[in-house]
Amino acid sequence: MKQILITKQDGTKEPFNVEKLRHSLTRSGASEQEIDGVVDYVKKDLKEGMSTSEIYKHAFSYLEHEKKPIAARYSMKRAVLALGPSGYPFENFIAEIFRTKGYKVEVGSVVKGACVEHEVDIIGEMNGQKIGAEVKFHNKLGIRSDLKVALYVHARFEDIRSGKIQIDEDWLITNTRFSSNAIKYSNCINMKMISWTYPKQGNLHDLIEETGIQPITALTSLSGAEKKKLMEQKVILCKNIESNEEILHSLGLGAQKIENVMAESQALCRI
Amino acid sequence: MKQILITKQDGTKEPFNVEKLRHSLTRSGASEQEIDGVVDYVKKDLKEGMSTSEIYKHAFSYLEHEKKPIAARYSMKRAVLALGPSGYPFENFIAEIFRTKGYKVEVGSVVKGACVEHEVDIIGEMNGQKIGAEVKFHNKLGIRSDLKVALYVHARFEDIRSGKIQIDEDWLITNTRFSSNAIKYSNCINMKMISWTYPKQGNLHDLIEETGIQPITALTSLSGAEKKKLMEQKVILCKNIESNEEILHSLGLGAQKIENVMAESQALCRI
Repeated sequence: MKQILITKQDGTKEPFNVEKLRHSLTRSGASEQEIDGVVDYVKKDLKEGMSTSEIYKHAFSYLEHEKKPIAARYSMKRAVLALGPSGYPFENFIAEIFRTKGYKVEVGSVVKGACVEHEVDIIGEMNGQKIGAEVKFHNKLGIRSDLKVALYVHARFEDIRSGKIQIDEDWLITNTRFSSNAIKYSNCINMKMISWTYPKQGNLHDLIEETGIQPITALTSLSGAEKKKLMEQKVILCKNIESNEEILHSLGLGAQKIENVMAESQALCRI
Repeated sequence: MKQILITKQDGTKEPFNVEKLRHSLTRSGASEQEIDGVVDYVKKDLKEGMSTSEIYKHAFSYLEHEKKPIAARYSMKRAVLALGPSGYPFENFIAEIFRTKGYKVEVGSVVKGACVEHEVDIIGEMNGQKIGAEVKFHNKLGIRSDLKVALYVHARFEDIRSGKIQIDEDWLITNTRFSSNAIKYSNCINMKMISWTYPKQGNLHDLIEETGIQPITALTSLSGAEKKKLMEQKVILCKNIESNEEILHSLGLGAQKIENVMAESQALCRI
């Protein structure tokens, strides 16, 4: 194949590198055979000057038709990352997952410990059992929640329990990953940890699959700026759009675009 | 007084502002009367284009002659800040303060807790009593060590004690300050905290005064680059220069300059 220059997000050009595409597909859990399928499909329509995000969308559209679970995994991490830069939308996204699992949930409660007051990101209650969760959002996938985070979360819940407030289970949830020391410590003190890949069963990816809760950032028919505006108005979940078509009008979107967004959210967000 | 332009550290010019000087003197604990003295002294010799650091030195030289304790406080925070950007020199500076107080000190020990291993910045022992200290260095005076820091340090020492390692007293030491919640929590769980101004007696300023331990960054006869080179060679303390004149030769300093540095360190570092 002759060398084709593609356009990166910052506007600079670089030669299309099939290995980069393969690498990112491998990380999403695709098999060699599936990757070959995507690569053939992408190469066929590759054009000089295409942007990396066009190529990504193209690969995604193939996967979406052929291999739904891989497509989901491939895009889900990116969609959750796009909930930033503040941690608030991710917190509400996690709260909704707990609600869907049957918990009565409070977000950002201030709770009196034996020594000081603490803000607890999520308190969930079901059948008289109470869980407390600290939710750590990071803007880059490379950043880990480390031992210090696990230590302070444990000390916080201990102080809350010493203040005679019921918390039966401590949770620490992140959109990135944990250091091995953080995992070792949390297992030892019996604190539950959730990241994309931890634990093997019941991790963040599994929870999203299981509950079908999708963030609005997973929609491809809205621009980044449009998603930001929705999040500013506390619209975080794909399913919130379904019941709230006026909010799309308030963004100044045309009728055709609104129709596209509604169609995509119906397909993607499994209301 | 007519407007005089002075040169800031980044090379840009701004009008000399007597209120900024007064403010910084107020923070150092000088009285109104003492501030008036410095301002008169500085104004007398103010020249167009003078740099802010020249003005600071000038103010300092007045205080040094007139009000030694204020001069010391005024410069000490800056000298300790100049130990950065890494936290290592500050850690060793604190270790030396403990040694001078009679402790046998280890820096950066790795200690097995019940759950995981921890690096403890300083472990000090005297008369069979063991203290463990976490040392938090910040590069800006505005940054506080907050409740999360106090929480993780407590959880760490608890894990160490659960592993049957003796630590009788927990300390948390910073070169900046603590949030009021961090102080409240630490008092409640009986952890000792040291910052510039906390506690009222026995704070970092008092400890430096009491032990006479001064960092090489307090010397005015060495340039910032020369101090950096010394710190890279693990020369952190003013008193280390006294016993080690060769190290100044190795920096390529001339005989006259070396004489100045030795004279200043003898005067300032109270060996």
